[in-house]
Amino acid sequence: MLNVIKIGGNIIDDKQKLQSFINDFSKIDGPKILVHGGGKIATGIGQRLNIEPNYVDGRRITDAATLELVTMVYGGLINKNIVAAMQAAGCNAIGITGADADIISAVKRKAGITDYGYVGDVTAVNIGVLKSLLDVALVPVIAPLTHDGEGNMLNTNADTIAQEIAKSMSSVMKVNLIYCFEKNGVLNDIDDDTSVISEILVLDFDRLKANWVINGGMLPKIENACNAVRNGVAQVVIGNSAYLYEMINGEKGTVIK
Amino acid sequence: MLNVIKIGGNIIDDKQKLQSFINDFSKIDGPKILVHGGGKIATGIGQRLNIEPNYVDGRRITDAATLELVTMVYGGLINKNIVAAMQAAGCNAIGITGADADIISAVKRKAGITDYGYVGDVTAVNIGVLKSLLDVALVPVIAPLTHDGEGNMLNTNADTIAQEIAKSMSSVMKVNLIYCFEKNGVLNDIDDDTSVISEILVLDFDRLKANWVINGGMLPKIENACNAVRNGVAQVVIGNSAYLYEMINGEKGTVIK
Repeated sequence: MLNVIKIGGNIIDDKQKLQSFINDFSKIDGPKILVHGGGKIATGIGQRLNIEPNYVDGRRITDAATLELVTMVYGGLINKNIVAAMQAAGCNAIGITGADADIISAVKRKAGITDYGYVGDVTAVNIGVLKSLLDVALVPVIAPLTHDGEGNMLNTNADTIAQEIAKSMSSVMKVNLIYCFEKNGVLNDIDDDTSVISEILVLDFDRLKANWVINGGMLPKIENACNAVRNGVAQVVIGNSAYLYEMINGEKGTVIK
Repeated sequence: MLNVIKIGGNIIDDKQKLQSFINDFSKIDGPKILVHGGGKIATGIGQRLNIEPNYVDGRRITDAATLELVTMVYGGLINKNIVAAMQAAGCNAIGITGADADIISAVKRKAGITDYGYVGDVTAVNIGVLKSLLDVALVPVIAPLTHDGEGNMLNTNADTIAQEIAKSMSSVMKVNLIYCFEKNGVLNDIDDDTSVISEILVLDFDRLKANWVINGGMLPKIENACNAVRNGVAQVVIGNSAYLYEMINGEKGTVIK
């Protein structure tokens, strides 16, 4: 069983939460891959560099200056500090981006109504190389960056990277995909963190979703999760990083299968 | 034969030279490792971030802010842009630091008369992991950063990293160590770029060096090279990156053996 685990800004921005997550993650048995997001560090460093964030429809545009920024911060600062902390916790992490070993190739998103800039849509995951890293007991720690095969790095959503890796690797091994976020799972009542929906069956989802009052931000996450399950992932768990083991065992968070 | 090749700031800071080097490097047959230095990019970004460089005896002190800076710029920006360009040139590069896969562990240099800050002195090179990357035809591209095994990244001289890797790997395969720099080799006359000393025999070096007028900056490079040869490296070549193949074949540059 391969565990593909994604953490986002809410963990990366909180030193104590991150260290606690790293300690837990390091103790997970068997093959595992971490995909990390960005967080506020990039925004802070961008401000100090006078790189003005540029948003369209709530999504940040990756212009050339922003691409440099995220390549530095995601691929360098965040990635390497996580790796060093994991090494200290006894986990043989290897920090990479999609460009490294051609792990994840992508194409620059075509400009439609909106031009998102240097944003990559994943075209392929290099199963063979990932497998050979896992085979020598290395633990890939993947920054949310890909490349276009023509010499350019590209900014890519970490949720998507985790999903694409999980889907591809499920052709060679059983895969669990775990999304850590700030809530305990998908909630029936957004204001009640105990109202976790413990299980969503993909087969039921389309029928159910019309009747559910799921907040807007959650819907794409669940759609993504369903998509992963339809493409071979054994189960997707969405929940709070404080309960990592319980999520892996399907005892906490929302299990989508 | 493993080629361990080091490039410094003079190549990294010159887009055209770097691209030309990457094209040449990518075509080298057999196992190879690239170690890259920093260059002026870090200084420029440091200035924009208001990180004041702090020099003692001509050597930059790595304070906490500078460590963040070099982790971002060396481990992220420079490393990933080289990797992406190599992928475009058909070379399956994997960009890492000493922390990744615990490739190079180090100890923070003890403060003596000078406290260099977060600078690492190499204690071990992980031959097994490097070998297993080379065995699956990956090309390690190594940024000049190590880690202390206690969660901290450390700044480490790229020449030293190249030397330590070459020495360690020579216990499992024949190793060539190649230092690219701005001159054509070790020169008899510093003002005459054609006065290259084509060969220095380690056995003769101590006897010869008293009579040579080698400029101060070259002496530690040659001492380092001799040290590498004494520790098992087949030969060290120092020369201009424009003649990469000739250097590998020992036809250009200064061969130290």
